[in-house]
Amino acid sequence: MKESKELICKMCRLFYIKGWVSGTGGGMTIRLDNDLALIAPSGIQKEEIEPHDLFLIQLDNSIKENYRIIEKPDQLKISACTSIFVQIFNQRPTAKAIIHSHSINAVMVTKITQAPEIALEKYEMLKGLQGGTYFGSHVLPILDNVEHECDLAEAVGKAVEKYPLAHAVLVRDHGVYIWGESPEKAKIHAECYDYLFGALIQEKTLKALNLIGG
Amino acid sequence: MKESKELICKMCRLFYIKGWVSGTGGGMTIRLDNDLALIAPSGIQKEEIEPHDLFLIQLDNSIKENYRIIEKPDQLKISACTSIFVQIFNQRPTAKAIIHSHSINAVMVTKITQAPEIALEKYEMLKGLQGGTYFGSHVLPILDNVEHECDLAEAVGKAVEKYPLAHAVLVRDHGVYIWGESPEKAKIHAECYDYLFGALIQEKTLKALNLIGG
Amino acid sequence: MKESKELICKMCRLFYIKGWVSGTGGGMTIRLDNDLALIAPSGIQKEEIEPHDLFLIQLDNSIKENYRIIEKPDQLKISACTSIFVQIFNQRPTAKAIIHSHSINAVMVTKITQAPEIALEKYEMLKGLQGGTYFGSHVLPILDNVEHECDLAEAVGKAVEKYPLAHAVLVRDHGVYIWGESPEKAKIHAECYDYLFGALIQEKTLKALNLIGG
Amino acid sequence: MKESKELICKMCRLFYIKGWVSGTGGGMTIRLDNDLALIAPSGIQKEEIEPHDLFLIQLDNSIKENYRIIEKPDQLKISACTSIFVQIFNQRPTAKAIIHSHSINAVMVTKITQAPEIALEKYEMLKGLQGGTYFGSHVLPILDNVEHECDLAEAVGKAVEKYPLAHAVLVRDHGVYIWGESPEKAKIHAECYDYLFGALIQEKTLKALNLIGG
Repeated sequence: MKESKELICKMCRLFYIKGWVSGTGGGMTIRLDNDLALIAPSGIQKEEIEPHDLFLIQLDNSIKENYRIIEKPDQLKISACTSIFVQIFNQRPTAKAIIHSHSINAVMVTKITQAPEIALEKYEMLKGLQGGTYFGSHVLPILDNVEHECDLAEAVGKAVEKYPLAHAVLVRDHGVYIWGESPEKAKIHAECYDYLFGALIQEKTLKALNLIGG
Repeated sequence: MKESKELICKMCRLFYIKGWVSGTGGGMTIRLDNDLALIAPSGIQKEEIEPHDLFLIQLDNSIKENYRIIEKPDQLKISACTSIFVQIFNQRPTAKAIIHSHSINAVMVTKITQAPEIALEKYEMLKGLQGGTYFGSHVLPILDNVEHECDLAEAVGKAVEKYPLAHAVLVRDHGVYIWGESPEKAKIHAECYDYLFGALIQEKTLKALNLIGG
Repeated sequence: MKESKELICKMCRLFYIKGWVSGTGGGMTIRLDNDLALIAPSGIQKEEIEPHDLFLIQLDNSIKENYRIIEKPDQLKISACTSIFVQIFNQRPTAKAIIHSHSINAVMVTKITQAPEIALEKYEMLKGLQGGTYFGSHVLPILDNVEHECDLAEAVGKAVEKYPLAHAVLVRDHGVYIWGESPEKAKIHAECYDYLFGALIQEKTLKALNLIGG
Repeated sequence: MKESKELICKMCRLFYIKGWVSGTGGGMTIRLDNDLALIAPSGIQKEEIEPHDLFLIQLDNSIKENYRIIEKPDQLKISACTSIFVQIFNQRPTAKAIIHSHSINAVMVTKITQAPEIALEKYEMLKGLQGGTYFGSHVLPILDNVEHECDLAEAVGKAVEKYPLAHAVLVRDHGVYIWGESPEKAKIHAECYDYLFGALIQEKTLKALNLIGG
């Protein structure tokens, strides 16, 4: 558990450099054995968190809130997106880590369409995604944002169920939740998706200027 | 006081990496107890300042210049924006730190409108601002720039008074002053605003190319 | 060999910062004496590789796969682009290192044309390329991408043969392979090409907006 | 002299991060007392240079080449832009350091006009330049590039003479030479100019999209 706590802190510092976490936005969770998960606190700078700032929760679908807090750091509030993380862990039993990114690339992808999904196509980087292929189309769901992050949990759960090949859910004007079968694989997925989001925006811009045909 | 001096130096090095301070532009102040504040010197590289380079001033509205210098490093001039910092501290008694950024994102936001204010809307990152909401509109004042920074002080004071929900004042072609109830909260606000400024410019560009509807 | 192993790891960390390797994409090989080469493993984070993660291969055109594995780290798979690396080493006897980059600049260059080549012209940075001149035109081949990287090897070999002045082969929607007569010279070429790719995209954008004439 | 040598190396590493030097392009010189100057070698990676890699030259207008080499590192060639550096030092007796940048911002500024000069206006960052004002217009000469950098020296000398208020000369498709009265002041000028070049390109782009009026 100590190692996983340190990994969350280290990765959050990296994600800060990448612009995926900034202000107090974005974050990460790692699922341990026995339905336990480590969760970052709410409303603080993620690049500054230390192992002792992390909450330990137990997933439990028999109670209304779908989790209970096992370890709580003094004077800290648990992340507002905890219920969303738990929903994703429930729908994806093999997922061991989830990254929540506020990347501007992800947000712009949600703004260029009003549709409830986006297709990613024709990039080698698709092959960095588990099950991804160059010639195939990889589709991610996009949910509309809400005022209170906890109100998103149910919709996220349904979207994850509906798109069994997706490793991420986009939230309009907000960002993206990305998971993987280990913290490293979640990071790899997050890097591939962020690359694909940025490339898609640039490709569409070049198309609008008639620099890319078709 | 030693800790606050070191924090200003550390944050200025970070802001240099972000491009908020560069050349000799941009900077930061922290308010201590008893109306004392630490101020960076003028005309030097902000990422290179050391604790002993900082001025200590006392806010005092009974004198014309609205502050007096308590501690002065040898051979250095006090920042040209000191009067502006004091005006903001006077108008916002809870503000404990102010960041002055020359970010190109902030400057471009002031160039895309000739209006005296700009509205920020429809981004989750608005919730990183104290009192910010996703569905609401967060409005910041924009002042026209002047030749001598000290001549801005009065206008900044009036703008801060007129926009009680704002945590920042934009100055056209120049940059932005951003504050918070602690140095950390000022940094969080600065990161949220800079993200929102950059996103607004990109969103407007994508709209101009018909890639975003409405 | 120890030094070359460490150099690959160090350079991969640098290329990660530059965005040339991300997810599990991109990588690097160094050719040692006697037709031996060090190859990174497949499907892992390149910025995290350690010297003991590297494969040692021997180039051998007398066998179908064109190389044999001499040293194999436990539990790792050899990079899918090994055959491509070997083809380039075969066609360019003086090449001592090859960098494989997934840079978005490189990918966008392959998207703005459907032609099998691209000309780079009128930048001083062309002079950073071996044999490059400011007034000349430097042409690189572009291959179409395939589903399985190993299926590219033959086409890469032919393109390298057909463009004797090129130090790189672009692969559409995928990235670029860049070589040099030493690891340092491969890195210098990679920096020049990436600069030229990014500049070309920006120049074309400014032309489309009538900001650049001609 | 030891300190100046170390400063060039340190600054070149910083300029590499900024993208002002890359490949083998860009560099820096510092003038010592008695018309001596430290010059980086040609054709190598500038972020890797060590103090012992630097040439020491003596400025001397009585000889054709306008300088003589006093100290020469083994197996290295002196920078191709040495004559240009000397011309600038001759024309600007107070200049103590010159930065040569291949920044894409600088190059794009030379591409958006065919005129022999460019005006920078209406940015607070102009005040970071010695003698710069917000309301004034700051004009820089632009020279056409040539095949051999040494052939630029005379034209650079004339341009520096013709624009007495400029602290820089742009070279089309190539980059910019920027000086100051100390290495720190040259760096400050270089940061201000690079900011202004990038902002000008973005401002023109937003104007072309009708997002900025006038």
